[in-house]
Amino acid sequence: MLNVEGKDIHQSSQGWIPVYPDASQSLAVMSIAFLLNRRDDPIVWRGPKKNAMIKQFLSDVVWGELDYLIIDTPPGTSDEHITVVESLQEYNPDGAILVTTPQAVAVGDVRRELTFCRKTKLPVLGVIENMSGFVCPHCSECSNVFSKGGGEALAREFEIPFLGCVPLDPQLARCLEQGQSYVDAFPSSPSSQVLHKIAESLHQRTTINGLPS
Amino acid sequence: MLNVEGKDIHQSSQGWIPVYPDASQSLAVMSIAFLLNRRDDPIVWRGPKKNAMIKQFLSDVVWGELDYLIIDTPPGTSDEHITVVESLQEYNPDGAILVTTPQAVAVGDVRRELTFCRKTKLPVLGVIENMSGFVCPHCSECSNVFSKGGGEALAREFEIPFLGCVPLDPQLARCLEQGQSYVDAFPSSPSSQVLHKIAESLHQRTTINGLPS
Repeated sequence: MLNVEGKDIHQSSQGWIPVYPDASQSLAVMSIAFLLNRRDDPIVWRGPKKNAMIKQFLSDVVWGELDYLIIDTPPGTSDEHITVVESLQEYNPDGAILVTTPQAVAVGDVRRELTFCRKTKLPVLGVIENMSGFVCPHCSECSNVFSKGGGEALAREFEIPFLGCVPLDPQLARCLEQGQSYVDAFPSSPSSQVLHKIAESLHQRTTINGLPS
Repeated sequence: MLNVEGKDIHQSSQGWIPVYPDASQSLAVMSIAFLLNRRDDPIVWRGPKKNAMIKQFLSDVVWGELDYLIIDTPPGTSDEHITVVESLQEYNPDGAILVTTPQAVAVGDVRRELTFCRKTKLPVLGVIENMSGFVCPHCSECSNVFSKGGGEALAREFEIPFLGCVPLDPQLARCLEQGQSYVDAFPSSPSSQVLHKIAESLHQRTTINGLPS
């Protein structure tokens, strides 16, 4: 998605140097994929090894000065989530962004993740509903592929911000396949506009280096 | 999806009695959801507790005589997968069915799962490509929401059976929301037909109670 396949991380005296997808170095990426010999190798690790690697990614990578550190977790509330929350606690993280699709089974998973955030006192920045409707490129009619509104209803129920609905867009899928920036390539598409709105809203409600942004 | 929300499992002298979604008792279901006090409760468990529960589901449930035992795992190759493969090894499982969506990032995950199956000597029954195109209910034109063909290409690459493409269908999503059987409600839809074909093909290539079916 970020056009970093095949890139390597390097070891310096300070630690691992992350991968920078573009020349401006505005984004630094760290992934276990960079540490594999071959891209088909599975990571057959039980929890303790995964937890140790997550801690290393936080402590042994030369992140430099960051405005934002974004951790993309798998679904659920297991080793990865417990370890991330525990390791970041002393840094007062801004909070979690929960992404759901509209159907009830997905919303049920995210509801349990919200309960997990409450229990661990991790603030919640908001909920995003992804794959929220599909605009047919042939007739421009919108269909709700997976029902609609589950994310917004969940946000209301938990009294947390609803950040927006991102519709399905074949152009978005194609850009991700090719490692291209979708918001640059299709700035006026409905999905781009809502992604911009979400980023703006998150930017306003988070802090950079301890100062309100 | 199976209309079993709120159902309870019961303890008998032989072990846990699973939940039967319909009166014919042709399907028995076990899920950790049945053991929770409230449906919003997250399972905040690290690997060892999950592994113990998986083993209990295999040993302490009164499954009775089964034609098929189907275990639905999360994505990846971690605790759940290692524990399932290790626990079932002595029973010679028929094998794994891998489900992917068409786009490259999803196929990459499933490629690593295939390598995991090879390493653990678990046979692979085949690959299914889910969310494979969307037929607009307004104009009947088909769009490839997430690109197309990734599952079939993967099956060819690994020389394993390709079981079929299941298109996105809002009716399928609606049935799952309501706990209805989609193949009964829409038997002639493209997705129903391919699901029937996949079930038939799996039935032919697996064994029941040690006898070829």
